[in-house]
Amino acid sequence: MTVRAAIQTKIVEYKQGDTTLEGFVAWDDALKGARPGVLVVHQWMGLTDYEKKRAEMLAQLGYVAFCADIYGKGVHPQNTAEAGAQAGKYKNDRQLLRARVNAGLAALRQQPRVDSKRIAAIGYCFGGTTVLELARSGADVAGVVSFHGGLDAPNPDDGKNIKCKVLVLHGADDPFSSPQDIAALENEMRKGGVDWQLVKFGGAVHSFTQPNAGNDNSKGAAYNERADQRSWEYMKVFFTGIFK
Amino acid sequence: MTVRAAIQTKIVEYKQGDTTLEGFVAWDDALKGARPGVLVVHQWMGLTDYEKKRAEMLAQLGYVAFCADIYGKGVHPQNTAEAGAQAGKYKNDRQLLRARVNAGLAALRQQPRVDSKRIAAIGYCFGGTTVLELARSGADVAGVVSFHGGLDAPNPDDGKNIKCKVLVLHGADDPFSSPQDIAALENEMRKGGVDWQLVKFGGAVHSFTQPNAGNDNSKGAAYNERADQRSWEYMKVFFTGIFK
Repeated sequence: MTVRAAIQTKIVEYKQGDTTLEGFVAWDDALKGARPGVLVVHQWMGLTDYEKKRAEMLAQLGYVAFCADIYGKGVHPQNTAEAGAQAGKYKNDRQLLRARVNAGLAALRQQPRVDSKRIAAIGYCFGGTTVLELARSGADVAGVVSFHGGLDAPNPDDGKNIKCKVLVLHGADDPFSSPQDIAALENEMRKGGVDWQLVKFGGAVHSFTQPNAGNDNSKGAAYNERADQRSWEYMKVFFTGIFK
Repeated sequence: MTVRAAIQTKIVEYKQGDTTLEGFVAWDDALKGARPGVLVVHQWMGLTDYEKKRAEMLAQLGYVAFCADIYGKGVHPQNTAEAGAQAGKYKNDRQLLRARVNAGLAALRQQPRVDSKRIAAIGYCFGGTTVLELARSGADVAGVVSFHGGLDAPNPDDGKNIKCKVLVLHGADDPFSSPQDIAALENEMRKGGVDWQLVKFGGAVHSFTQPNAGNDNSKGAAYNERADQRSWEYMKVFFTGIFK
């Protein structure tokens, strides 16, 4: 257990079926009473220090933040080929992906100090796709936020299952989601009567919140400080709205 | 002059060429020192109580807000046919539109208490189109915000003239801007290297900030409380960023 000011963190093992998963929880020990909970879903490289840092930032905002582990304990892709194989496995089996992310949600709800009536989920890249899938699973959460998620609509009718509010934060020059795929997602949500918002950040490509991604937009993935900061602010506005 | 708490307001006459225009300024008299200025551009019905109310809301946020008059003193469309004729006149003569809105900008700069280095412009419907045209004119402002503006790109190279940041707040079901027109605007800004953002609000049509627009989305224009509130919050985040 790490103590940093009042922010505390802890590794949490939990299960989906027979698979052991290794999550991470962060909270502000100085705050009393039940707090809203935020599930954080990782990028294609699996649960790394990046997502743990985001969880600590969320804890500093007063939330109990829980990083889900989709891939399983000990599964840590070492390169993009391994990451692509892992992410692909779940993108191609949305039911398994839903089961894994819902297991993370259940683990979040079990954390002490969590107000289980006030829950949201955010995700980055692969995790963005995953929280949209969480919404489509009909999960009882207040809202989900995708940061540069892979956007698509594998089953255009799935929007009808979505009970929560949706905020999609997207790089306007992200080459990994085609305009057609984005339009399909919009139509899925429109058809489903979802309360949704989509923000396009000009000049931003994939991974715009990820400092490790460098700054060369021509690679299709790069850090973009202003889109990073703005998207975080929009998430805060979104949480203020859903956690009233 | 109206006094409401510390908010004060005043009618201001100014000119563009030989045409007399009748603007409106609102400010918080309790605040000392120079304040950022915000130009407010009206809808197709001309400068009405709606825009004056927005100016007062901006004054409550600490800005000096100035409602421009694009149509001219005494020009007050009484119905949608007259409004369409007026708005059409300026939409079809973008140079005149630019001259009119820049005259409003100059009048704002001349107001006492305005920090002329910290200026933004917002506009609603016709006014949204107008503040984008203001940006394309190369105006020295920090940013412009379009609320359910008519979106298009009459001259795809004009984005290169834009020096300010751009925030476009749009109803995802607004029937008055086609997907092609929106894509053209995005491409104009992309090509111009503009710092731009576009927010689409699901379930919102044209006029989503206008309570008088009713609540029947099938008419293509309707009030949408959540999009109204969210768009105002995003504007505030935008201003916080540009007025640092």
